[in-house]
Amino acid sequence: MPLTFTDPKTLDHATLEEGGAFAPRFDAGGLVTVVTVDAATNAVLMVAHMNAQTLALTLETGIAHYWSRSRQSVWKKGETSGEVQEVVELRTDCDQDCLVMAVRQTGRGAACHTGRQSCFYRRVVFADGEARLEDIGLPRLFDPEAVYGN
Amino acid sequence: MPLTFTDPKTLDHATLEEGGAFAPRFDAGGLVTVVTVDAATNAVLMVAHMNAQTLALTLETGIAHYWSRSRQSVWKKGETSGEVQEVVELRTDCDQDCLVMAVRQTGRGAACHTGRQSCFYRRVVFADGEARLEDIGLPRLFDPEAVYGN
Repeated sequence: MPLTFTDPKTLDHATLEEGGAFAPRFDAGGLVTVVTVDAATNAVLMVAHMNAQTLALTLETGIAHYWSRSRQSVWKKGETSGEVQEVVELRTDCDQDCLVMAVRQTGRGAACHTGRQSCFYRRVVFADGEARLEDIGLPRLFDPEAVYGN
Repeated sequence: MPLTFTDPKTLDHATLEEGGAFAPRFDAGGLVTVVTVDAATNAVLMVAHMNAQTLALTLETGIAHYWSRSRQSVWKKGETSGEVQEVVELRTDCDQDCLVMAVRQTGRGAACHTGRQSCFYRRVVFADGEARLEDIGLPRLFDPEAVYGN
């Protein structure tokens, strides 16, 4: 039987926020936002999206599957790069429109397509009324051209 | 002079991903997703949104200002509850459509409107083909009824 989720419209506000029913509030495009963190350090690795299909796949397999908005297809993380993510824990937020997924990042430990551990490799520096970006120095753990080609 | 941001459409892909220009890619609704984490522990506290106005306010004041999608207004976090967030660091992701903001959570240390430290206080438990939620036991640091009324 395929895994289905509770329809959040069937829940009152208190049950949505405090109850035991998992009722993801997919947006108009059928997606929830997923914040993927390293299970060991809590570091935010990436932010992506899941639809009902890839959320079910993720729970059933224990391996992160996202929905690629650019390709409009199932995105098994690491299918090309080898950087598969093993799910350690999945949490939902109070109003169930967002998930935090703690993972064990396999492969070379790079969640980002640029070859870095995390997609968040630049900080915003605000000075003299201007906001600029500064690289925080995360090393590249793989060469994206070698892994993805052009 | 009000703070403005680089228009991402003026940047090529490599510059958007590797350059020093801060060019947030606001979505069709004018928003970017913001993952707010505790600066000391990396714990994800909440996920919310900013538009250009509240992103500028946040950078200029060093205090977290979001855009409330439900109220369609500026949301200075903690204005009602006292749970103000002091910004320690703001990072952008590779394609600049998402931010991670590390904060010092003031007040009682509760980022969630339910009174808990984090909005992510329930984990998904998958067993016997069914997904349910389980409270992870984060204590309530304030009584939401006392703080927000009804």
